[in-house]
Amino acid sequence: MAYLNENYLKLKAGYLFPEIGRRVRVFCEANPDVAARLIRCGIGDVTEPLPAAVVAALHRAVDEMGSRPTFKGYGPEQGYEWLRTIVAQEDFRRRGVEVADDEIFISDGSKCDCGSILDILGAKNKIAISDPVYPVYVDTNVMAGHTGAANEAGAYAKLVYLPCRPANGFIPEPPKRPVDVIYLCSPNNPTGAAATREQLTAWVNYALANRAIILFDAAYEAYITDPAIPHSIYEIPGARECAIEFRSFSKNGGFTGLRCAFTVVPKTLQARTVAGEYKPLHSLWARRMTTKFNGVSYIIQRAAEVLYSPEGREQVKALIEHYLGNAKVLRTGAKKAGLKVFDGVNAPYIWVRTPKGITSWQAFDQILGQAQVVITPGSGFGSKGEGYIRISAFNSRANAEEVARRLQELKW
Amino acid sequence: MAYLNENYLKLKAGYLFPEIGRRVRVFCEANPDVAARLIRCGIGDVTEPLPAAVVAALHRAVDEMGSRPTFKGYGPEQGYEWLRTIVAQEDFRRRGVEVADDEIFISDGSKCDCGSILDILGAKNKIAISDPVYPVYVDTNVMAGHTGAANEAGAYAKLVYLPCRPANGFIPEPPKRPVDVIYLCSPNNPTGAAATREQLTAWVNYALANRAIILFDAAYEAYITDPAIPHSIYEIPGARECAIEFRSFSKNGGFTGLRCAFTVVPKTLQARTVAGEYKPLHSLWARRMTTKFNGVSYIIQRAAEVLYSPEGREQVKALIEHYLGNAKVLRTGAKKAGLKVFDGVNAPYIWVRTPKGITSWQAFDQILGQAQVVITPGSGFGSKGEGYIRISAFNSRANAEEVARRLQELKW
Repeated sequence: MAYLNENYLKLKAGYLFPEIGRRVRVFCEANPDVAARLIRCGIGDVTEPLPAAVVAALHRAVDEMGSRPTFKGYGPEQGYEWLRTIVAQEDFRRRGVEVADDEIFISDGSKCDCGSILDILGAKNKIAISDPVYPVYVDTNVMAGHTGAANEAGAYAKLVYLPCRPANGFIPEPPKRPVDVIYLCSPNNPTGAAATREQLTAWVNYALANRAIILFDAAYEAYITDPAIPHSIYEIPGARECAIEFRSFSKNGGFTGLRCAFTVVPKTLQARTVAGEYKPLHSLWARRMTTKFNGVSYIIQRAAEVLYSPEGREQVKALIEHYLGNAKVLRTGAKKAGLKVFDGVNAPYIWVRTPKGITSWQAFDQILGQAQVVITPGSGFGSKGEGYIRISAFNSRANAEEVARRLQELKW
Repeated sequence: MAYLNENYLKLKAGYLFPEIGRRVRVFCEANPDVAARLIRCGIGDVTEPLPAAVVAALHRAVDEMGSRPTFKGYGPEQGYEWLRTIVAQEDFRRRGVEVADDEIFISDGSKCDCGSILDILGAKNKIAISDPVYPVYVDTNVMAGHTGAANEAGAYAKLVYLPCRPANGFIPEPPKRPVDVIYLCSPNNPTGAAATREQLTAWVNYALANRAIILFDAAYEAYITDPAIPHSIYEIPGARECAIEFRSFSKNGGFTGLRCAFTVVPKTLQARTVAGEYKPLHSLWARRMTTKFNGVSYIIQRAAEVLYSPEGREQVKALIEHYLGNAKVLRTGAKKAGLKVFDGVNAPYIWVRTPKGITSWQAFDQILGQAQVVITPGSGFGSKGEGYIRISAFNSRANAEEVARRLQELKW
């Protein structure tokens, strides 16, 4: 009699994006005259085409795969050496940050890695997660049995929620009590907040003191414009002893539909057995990846490699400037509309306080109804997101400008 | 104090392919004069380039990704509808087998799926695994904590091993005692054996009687030449209530370096909670894939789609005929060499008894030393593989013919 994993039954249904889709559909059916005006600033997905250098690299790699002498079958599960080397060199060592080539693990996405990392961690860890937060951190812990049931507000027992509020710049402080594993995302999805060197140093010191592990999601690193903001947790002394970092090519190279990312596991990072023996996590992650993964497509690794070439860099820079330009337009528009706006300076997201104490979903309905703009209700990212909305800057400039205009016409 | 997953510490190091690599290196360094003669028939990786139709489809999809109107960002995590539909239609419904479009989950590899499927199953299942077997089934169960420690022979406590021997045609019979989850691979890696309709029917009936689940790995389905051999477990009545099937484009389309596969989870398949309630696994797998995976690259899904076109089918057929032609050459050569040979008719692997009672590794060393051919020792796949070797047919025809010749010159 086969048993299922009952932890899955604790999961609250993934209401957020399906519910957004449902409300948009109902609205468009009821208002066919204005449906064509709809602009989507909801999901955090890029809109601009792949950089020309990437397209050229893909064509070259496809031709290699079509010819016997250059055909590639299985590659190394952790990624080709030429890609691991250029990543470690250009994203870390060139910035003065110590990361070895074989501490880079190429994968098909940070979402996968953020979930899979729990494979190598024990079941007894106390897990701390920001609120609001990217839902994958919470859901994968529920699936792994690290939580109790959810309460009515959607908070799971046993998780330690770290509130993100204007008072802490939406970057949580270390808790008073010890926790074992901490998720940090900077620049943050959904709030757009970027952790300062002081904030990250406090977290690294906390982790070292408690022998905890920080899971640092830096998927939006390319959007940092403030030179004082660290791009990597490993810029903080001691982080190689307490942190794993997730990076992605999704939001810099526009790879959301191509699929490539990487995770850094320093060889100096250890975790304990129940008996109290400390062992490196690097060999466990290497074993996990070689056993449960078969590497990223050769042609896509070649596409990632070219992002580090001079043309690739220029083209990525232009993409980032485009989206950050949109963010500025949206920030300015929302401010002119009298709204309280957070960030959008070091991230492609604008985090906006709803006016007059209305809820996130009420704001969603009003903006959809009056302006035909789709945003994301902040409450979908956790209870502390209630009273906020997230506006995504992934769009054309014309659409961003139009959204900025329409925000100013809203009657609250 | 962060805990690690101690189950990983039970894993025997992945000795097989590293050890093969080490012995080959040592031999070549000691014998530089014959090192250039080396022919590899070890790892099960394709050698021929991608079909022309696939190369063309990839180029078209790359161009789409380089243009704003046709650019694709995040796709559905379970795969694009057009691919799920053509797979369900062409691989199943066209053969009279009932599988719905949304029972197909597109992934980046069967290795990943075979490992990840354990995410949705409970911790209390009694697991049965063939011996010899593809090592991923065993290792992922060790990692998930479903086993005890390994003994000296490398067998893990709590697993039920199902011996595969000449007497049962290398397809195990259902055990006398009840088990909850059973791994079956047909055509088999490493033995090349393909399960008959009668054998599969016995397993389906056993699973239905015990409410067990069969994890059916059909990655080598395209190599079946005997019209009486089922291509899918769902050809057996009742299998939709007791089986999950894994399929891959690796060995038919030559996608080992591209990465695309799929898993079939029928909506009629259920498993129990500890309290005895039965629930469908389909929604759990859908939740797993949407939460811990972000879909296969758009361009690679387009490449998979074209395998079902008339040109794609013709080109895949030619590839399969090429590898099966190699298998025939190797079978004939090994038989002429006086060896006892199994299969290579419905699979790209030849399973060969070592002569004179020598061990798998002794045979490996002799074949490397005398013939400069690399094979895989059967004992690397489990204790019941001792006394066998696996010869892979993934090679050029010229190499297969040369290996066949050299096998006949061996002095045992």
